[in-house]
Formats: sequence, C-alpha cells, structure tokens
Amino acid sequence: MSTQATAFAPASIGNVAVGFDILGHSIKGPGDRVTVRRIGEPQVRIAEIRGGMCLLPIEAKRNTAGAALIAMRTALMLPFGFEIEIDKGIPFGSGMGGSAASAVAALVAANALLDVPLSREELYPFALEGEAVASGGLHGDNVGAMLLGGLVLATKDRLVSIPVPPDLYCALVHPHAVLETRDARAALAGHYELREFVPQSANLALVLAGCFQNDFNLIRAGLEDVLVEPRRASLIDGFAAVKESALAGRALGASISGAGPSVFAWCSGKEQAENVALRMRGAFAKARIECDTWVSPVAGPAAEVVACM
Amino acid sequence: MSTQATAFAPASIGNVAVGFDILGHSIKGPGDRVTVRRIGEPQVRIAEIRGGMCLLPIEAKRNTAGAALIAMRTALMLPFGFEIEIDKGIPFGSGMGGSAASAVAALVAANALLDVPLSREELYPFALEGEAVASGGLHGDNVGAMLLGGLVLATKDRLVSIPVPPDLYCALVHPHAVLETRDARAALAGHYELREFVPQSANLALVLAGCFQNDFNLIRAGLEDVLVEPRRASLIDGFAAVKESALAGRALGASISGAGPSVFAWCSGKEQAENVALRMRGAFAKARIECDTWVSPVAGPAAEVVACM
Repeated sequence: MSTQATAFAPASIGNVAVGFDILGHSIKGPGDRVTVRRIGEPQVRIAEIRGGMCLLPIEAKRNTAGAALIAMRTALMLPFGFEIEIDKGIPFGSGMGGSAASAVAALVAANALLDVPLSREELYPFALEGEAVASGGLHGDNVGAMLLGGLVLATKDRLVSIPVPPDLYCALVHPHAVLETRDARAALAGHYELREFVPQSANLALVLAGCFQNDFNLIRAGLEDVLVEPRRASLIDGFAAVKESALAGRALGASISGAGPSVFAWCSGKEQAENVALRMRGAFAKARIECDTWVSPVAGPAAEVVACM
Repeated sequence: MSTQATAFAPASIGNVAVGFDILGHSIKGPGDRVTVRRIGEPQVRIAEIRGGMCLLPIEAKRNTAGAALIAMRTALMLPFGFEIEIDKGIPFGSGMGGSAASAVAALVAANALLDVPLSREELYPFALEGEAVASGGLHGDNVGAMLLGGLVLATKDRLVSIPVPPDLYCALVHPHAVLETRDARAALAGHYELREFVPQSANLALVLAGCFQNDFNLIRAGLEDVLVEPRRASLIDGFAAVKESALAGRALGASISGAGPSVFAWCSGKEQAENVALRMRGAFAKARIECDTWVSPVAGPAAEVVACM
C-alpha cells in the first residue's frame, strides 16, 4: 500500500461559451501538482503551497484541495488523514480552473492511497465540494473536465464525456490580470428574460450536435455566448478586440474562459489555433497587456497520478 | 406542371420539456391537410376551412397557412397566387402544433406547384412567419419537426435533425380543453434567475447526449422541465396527477406538449408508451376530463404531398 502519491490536474476552460456552469474541457499544458500523504491523525492538513502569485488559504477547510479531501474522508469514514502539498501551476484568478485543479489533483492522489480506489465519477461529488469553497457555488464544469479529460458535460450529479472532432483545437490566452471568480459571478446577478435563454440554449444544442456529428459548421453556428459574456465582457480590458481578432482569424468561436480574464477560441486544426493564439496575443498587446498563450486539442488530458511511493 | 396539390402535416410536440421554442418532434397520427391551387391573380386567399371546433381566421394574412404562403410569394417574387383549402385534423388550442401544421402543409403543397421546388430547409423561414401570426413570436420547434420529421433542433435560421433511439416512443394525451398559445405564453412573462437556466441547460444537454448515444438512462436523467413547466402547470387541470401517473408507469419523463394543455411522455418501447397513455388518460378521467390519446415513435413522419394534379 502506497503512503504518498502525487497527481497532476490540467488547466481547463469552463463554460465553453454555451454551457454556463455545466460544460468544460481540459487543456494540455499548464496544471497543478498535488502530493498527498496518508497520515495517522484523523485530519486533513496542508503542509505547503508553492507557486502562485497570491496567498491561497492554507487552512484545509478553506482551501479547495483541503475541502475536497475533507469531503472524501467524511463520506468514506476513513480512519486515517491526509497531508497535502500543493504546487500551483495555474495562475490565480485566471479563469483556467486553478481552484478546481488543486481539488482534483488532491483527490486523484488521495484516491491512489485508498484501500479500494474510487472511479473518477465517484470522486466528482468531493471535487464539487472542494471547488465550492473558492467559487461559492456547486458547479462542475472545471472539475468534471479534469476528472475525465476532454469535453465534459457536468450536471449536479453526473459527468458525461462529449466526443469531439479530433481536429478541434483550442487557443487559450491568459492576460496578466486577475479576475476573482466571486467578482465575475457578481456581474451575473439580477434578472434575466426567458427570451435571452432561448438563443443560448439553441447555441448549446448546436455545439453539442456539432461535436457528436463531427460538424464544424454546426459548432461555428453555435459557439457564441449571448447570455453571460455580454455581462462580463467589460470586466476584461481589451476583450472585444481580442475576440474580434480570433474571429478574424477564422476561429469557430471565442469567448471568456471560465470566469475570465483568460479568453479562448475553438479552431479547426492546430495550425489555425496557433495563428489565432498569436492574433489574440497581439490584440492584448495593443491594449498594453502582456499575456501567455497555449494551444491544445479540445480533447485534452485527464488528471493522473504521476508518482506513487 | 401541376396546378393543385394536397399535403398532410403531422401534429407535433413542441418544447419537448427541455428545449423551449427550439426542440420539437412530429407525431404519427393526427394532422392537418391543406390543398393549394395555383391561381392567376397575384394574391393568396383562403377558400375554405373545414374541421376544428373554433373559427380560425379566413383572412389570409391572419391565418398561419395564408401568412406562410404570402411570405413565400413575396420572397420568391412569384408571378402567380395561391388559393387554399384547409382541413383541420389537429384540435384548436391543444398544444399539438395545429397552427404550425396548417402553415407547413400549405407550404409543402405550394412547393409542389413551383417551377423549381425548394428544399425543406428553404421552406423554414416561411413556416416561421406563418406560425408567428398565431403565436405572436418566431419559434420553429413545431414547424421544424413537421418539415423534417422526427426530433428536430430549430434555431432562428437553421434546422438540425437529432437522431433518436428506434425504441423511443411517445404517449400523447389531449384533454378536451382549450389553452390558447398566447395565454400560455403570458404565464412566462416576468423575471428569471440565471440559476434557473443552469439545470434546464443541463437537462437539454443530457437529453441530446442520450439521443445521440442511444442511452435511455441519460434521457431519463434529463427529460424534466424545471423552467417553463412550473409556470404553466397550474393552467392545466389535473396536470400534476397526469404527470405522476406517467412517471409511475416508468416513462422516461413527462411534461406539457407545446403550450398545452396536451401532456406527453417519452417511453422506452411501444408497449410501455401504450400503458403510460392509458395511465395518463385515467388520471385525467379522475379529474372528470375526457381526452384522446396517441402513441407514436418519437421519430415521427415529415409532412408530405398526398395528392397532386
């Protein structure tokens, strides 16, 4: 029986323009790495958090990794505890699923230390509880994508992998600015009309149909956020120009990654995605904002154990 | 060149619980029959409306069939006109797509009289305009299903056929009561919260994934209207008991057909659908409401020309 395991969870793009709180996909590249040790004391504690420019809570119940493992311990009535070390690879407040990644990496590592490991779907409720301490609500779009990899529909109690065309790529641009999830969510308060929901549902259905049928035209027709993006766009300096630059580069669609400020675009093929990433970086640069860029298949990796002893 | 054609358009179920205004499927059984004659005068006129318990507008521009053909004539700049006879087979104000069926049957018949007939997708904008004179808004869930047959995603400018499991059946129960679409839509006015949209979107995605993947469990998990049905249920006497009776019969889900008062249930197989239809009829009977019932594959027929001379 192993007593220590390290897992890596990739970054992810939440919402994916048309599936607010329910649709996400993982990204090949950046991610969080979490080491978990089985300890005799019946508690969850965080030994260290490395990386990340911002102080994350070290108190276990206020940290997403800690809260996830507390939820796991409680539900499984484990007689032992966990000690956690977190290496942040995902920038804080970037809209790239950083809070979710720490929770998922911690769960995947801890799962490797259980006498009877659980399935990824069985880890989902614990990941939701972990994520909730950062965002203030239960939404599984990021943790679901990290647990299964690729594009995932994450409902309140279920994860469904959505197949995607193999040539579907994503360009992700992270401007060097912080937008706290809580602030981004506050912009969504207030009233909505039913007629706002109809075109957004239609777009969700078009994107799903396009993914299931390998039809880029349907994806292009649907990949537009008409519900949430209009309320959040003003929180991201340069957003309109960055989105426009992606569409001018023939991206299938572009929108805010998760709660922002990162911006993503879906593209037909890797070459187009690399070109679109450059265009988006250029548009941010015109607004004097530095940024990092990544290009990844939409069918990104799942979280995985990288070391076990 | 034919100068007269008759077409039949089937009834349909609009909204399908999770796709308000965008998802519909046709039903094998009842429908409207419309005969269209090419006439020399550059106008659209309605010669007669037979059947239906209620007086429908005979003025062409206020009738859905007339308005649809006016839209067609105008867009195609046709040098001739049309005379229309309508045989209503779908009860007025039933939530079974009666206003849509007259428009679609008229278009399919008129299309057979064109020198260069259009595709079903090309008829869609005219059908939308026809339907709008009855409902007061552009929504293609019923006309889309009738034009293509089966389960159809109908956006503002696009129709997408959604494949369904061959064993997927529908039980449809029409209580002998009238609920005007305009009144049913008035119940939906007012404000909504974003958090109401999230579970409804999740349900739409689950149903679509279930249809694409032939997975009845996903369909069952998703086929529930948490957004519109709660606001309309009180307009339909006996609704709660009828829905409950369907679910007790192991239906995958049940909700209001279109704007109501008809109620539908999706079922796994024809036998279950027949049983569920009886249960729903029984529940309406307990509330002293008579009704008609139909059982149909969800992959119902498309509108078609039945006579041409």
